[in-house]
Amino acid sequence: MARTTGSDGEKTEAAIREAAVGLIARLGFEAMSMRQLAGEVGVQAAALYRYFPTKEELLYTLMREHMEDLIASWEEARPAAALIDAAPAGRLATFVENHIRFHLSRRSATHVSNLELRSLSDEKLASILALRARYEDELRAILRDGVSTGQFKVEDVRLTAMAIIQMITGVIVWFRPEERLSANQVAKTYHMMTMRLVGARD
Amino acid sequence: MARTTGSDGEKTEAAIREAAVGLIARLGFEAMSMRQLAGEVGVQAAALYRYFPTKEELLYTLMREHMEDLIASWEEARPAAALIDAAPAGRLATFVENHIRFHLSRRSATHVSNLELRSLSDEKLASILALRARYEDELRAILRDGVSTGQFKVEDVRLTAMAIIQMITGVIVWFRPEERLSANQVAKTYHMMTMRLVGARD
Repeated sequence: MARTTGSDGEKTEAAIREAAVGLIARLGFEAMSMRQLAGEVGVQAAALYRYFPTKEELLYTLMREHMEDLIASWEEARPAAALIDAAPAGRLATFVENHIRFHLSRRSATHVSNLELRSLSDEKLASILALRARYEDELRAILRDGVSTGQFKVEDVRLTAMAIIQMITGVIVWFRPEERLSANQVAKTYHMMTMRLVGARD
Repeated sequence: MARTTGSDGEKTEAAIREAAVGLIARLGFEAMSMRQLAGEVGVQAAALYRYFPTKEELLYTLMREHMEDLIASWEEARPAAALIDAAPAGRLATFVENHIRFHLSRRSATHVSNLELRSLSDEKLASILALRARYEDELRAILRDGVSTGQFKVEDVRLTAMAIIQMITGVIVWFRPEERLSANQVAKTYHMMTMRLVGARD
């Protein structure tokens, strides 16, 4: 990817990303034009192409970085939890809490990542799905450990991992911070539901 | 909505809907043109407008009928379950099974319903959300009954209903009938996960 170095270039690139996430979440990727995006950022359309040679490259960058940031946030949360409680139940609690917190703080990027996969070419789609699989592997490992220590009761590790991820990612669809529950209350309730779902023993 | 009566008109309208669901699921609503849809159906673009005066009207019809069919499928499944077991656990089992079966048989329509809400005007969006709320109310009623009879242990009925719906709708994202599990096995495992999630007593 062409990347202009130096502070001004980095600022412009960051502004493009931020505006693109907002516009794509609101209008949809297909409906957004590069001209519209340039207008939002306040640059000429030609300038965008210095940072993102194609519109698909822009989408791919947003999705790839979203997944890379999610994986990094889990890798950062994970060792801290291991010090407190390396048992599967503790790791699962950290996974759920980190996942909800991460997605609530990046609602638009999450919508883009979940809704626009069909606009990627096969090769780029495969690369995003590989990142997702890497992240989901972390959850599957926790579930397998819980089953092997007898702490969890799970019929099917793959199905259970999908069920948990879809349940906890779904929070961003309906949760509004200004409404009756705080993000912490929501995370706590989802944690308790997840523990029951995996048949965790107290 | 303009509706041409008679057998040929009905057949054309059904062909338009079917082609539209497939095209929108594949390309996205914004990316699909009425001209493209007409080509797929094998009619002139002008003919489409006799059935659907605007592109948004077409999307709205697809989404509204998807939700109406879902509600009808539940209303049909519900009394049968009540004869066998009117207890909340039995009704919840029927709800989960019906929801998964319905969505697996209409994957493309489900994708359209889940991904294209942003292309509806406020008024039409409100009408679709009202249908969703009516369906979700059915699940919330089951959960409340389960809590009041002491069969379920649920911290928050609204949150639990959202968690269950997102978990069981998510099946269509990853489930492929040709892979290792049958639709029945998947429905059975999701039923067991749901029962644990609501803290159901055996």
